[in-house]
Amino acid sequence: MPSLRPENGIIAGQTGAQRLIGYKIDVGQPDRRARAVLEVGPDHANRIGALHGGIIAMLLDAAMGFTASLYFGEGEPEVPLVTVSMTTNFVSIAKIGSTVTATGLVAGGGRSIAQVTGELVDDGGAVIATATGVFRRIKG
Amino acid sequence: MPSLRPENGIIAGQTGAQRLIGYKIDVGQPDRRARAVLEVGPDHANRIGALHGGIIAMLLDAAMGFTASLYFGEGEPEVPLVTVSMTTNFVSIAKIGSTVTATGLVAGGGRSIAQVTGELVDDGGAVIATATGVFRRIKG
Amino acid sequence: MPSLRPENGIIAGQTGAQRLIGYKIDVGQPDRRARAVLEVGPDHANRIGALHGGIIAMLLDAAMGFTASLYFGEGEPEVPLVTVSMTTNFVSIAKIGSTVTATGLVAGGGRSIAQVTGELVDDGGAVIATATGVFRRIKG
Amino acid sequence: MPSLRPENGIIAGQTGAQRLIGYKIDVGQPDRRARAVLEVGPDHANRIGALHGGIIAMLLDAAMGFTASLYFGEGEPEVPLVTVSMTTNFVSIAKIGSTVTATGLVAGGGRSIAQVTGELVDDGGAVIATATGVFRRIKG
Repeated sequence: MPSLRPENGIIAGQTGAQRLIGYKIDVGQPDRRARAVLEVGPDHANRIGALHGGIIAMLLDAAMGFTASLYFGEGEPEVPLVTVSMTTNFVSIAKIGSTVTATGLVAGGGRSIAQVTGELVDDGGAVIATATGVFRRIKG
Repeated sequence: MPSLRPENGIIAGQTGAQRLIGYKIDVGQPDRRARAVLEVGPDHANRIGALHGGIIAMLLDAAMGFTASLYFGEGEPEVPLVTVSMTTNFVSIAKIGSTVTATGLVAGGGRSIAQVTGELVDDGGAVIATATGVFRRIKG
Repeated sequence: MPSLRPENGIIAGQTGAQRLIGYKIDVGQPDRRARAVLEVGPDHANRIGALHGGIIAMLLDAAMGFTASLYFGEGEPEVPLVTVSMTTNFVSIAKIGSTVTATGLVAGGGRSIAQVTGELVDDGGAVIATATGVFRRIKG
Repeated sequence: MPSLRPENGIIAGQTGAQRLIGYKIDVGQPDRRARAVLEVGPDHANRIGALHGGIIAMLLDAAMGFTASLYFGEGEPEVPLVTVSMTTNFVSIAKIGSTVTATGLVAGGGRSIAQVTGELVDDGGAVIATATGVFRRIKG
């Protein structure tokens, strides 16, 4: 039976949505904070030619959700869970051609609920968006 | 110069992200509430085989944002604006094969800020998600 | 043993905070939507002489929380629960001297989690604020 | 004309609501992050005998709002503004008898809008709640 832990900690192309958007998840860092990384291309543009807010929310949801999984699973990245609620604050725009990284951080939680914060930054260090989310563990 | 108002009120393939995901925007309803409609396919799936939360957020952002535009523009759908903040509550899952519709509703606002609520329902009438957003008008 | 259901459906002065602020809770309506009602006085003022945003959040939290309780308890208003997350959108100001009413509405939920929306209106019918909240049932 | 900057940076009893609840604001720190401090007493209790969620939201709103003021005013704490939207995540309970401190941090913003995060901790260092807020500058 294959381990659920990816060997190098990188998850790519796992779901239809992930393949469509093209982001990668890094669940292998020792701080147990998951990252979602995207090279922003023309396919990700909004009406003003910057990274679409919906994709910003998707990256933050992914980074926070896998961070919640690592929290529930004590390092195991594939614990089944659902997003209950999520707030995204859009701080500045991310340009086409940049690489953006969302990172999660557990703020609190118990056995079945985790509260996670997230931040999306570009490769110049600018904060693009911040987020908070509530995640609930479910039976697999 | 072409009018910014689409003839039949339907906006499709306007941005890279919209083409990638494949949703349509309806800004032609007399209630001035914009809709975002998506036929959910395998490309939109999350880890549990349902519509990805990030795409749910994207549809609600689009429906609320165009509703804010119709509000600022008194029926004009292409007023430039940015999402300042958005909260999404995930109520139930949307299945692959269903069609989902997000609809916005203006809760309040002034000349430069609009507060909009949104609801995403599937073709069986089930509420998939609710949302609230703050939108800010910008110079075009 | 006394019933937990207040005879006329009105809960007043139940907690230190409720006595301090002076709002009343109505859990006796047949629609199972709880209300929190406050006559706004000078003690409730913010820096610009209107109802303080923190008290607005408190009224919405109370109305949504008791609505969640009625949902979990199928009409029983005193089911123990905690607020997990709450978003408030401030739409317009409420004047000193007005009476404001917050009302909750269940958007979705299961056995342990409820997602509730709320609206605060003044006695002239103006929407003061909208809110969404996530509530979790706990052991009493 | 008196300066709007309090001599020792402490604002107490400024509004009806602040007098009623009894918290203090510190706007005098060199990091330009405002603090709201409350000694939690029985008047601040909720149904389970801990600090009421509405008062938690009030403290975070105050700390984030004055932080936004210091941001807009470049150190001036009394710039007129309103809260547009605010999300609070309730992480753990604060006990009666503890002292809690909310602190704001600017995440981004422009001339008229500020996006601020906040954190409420107790005197043992436990995180009680996190928050994000959108604040809009208004004419005085």
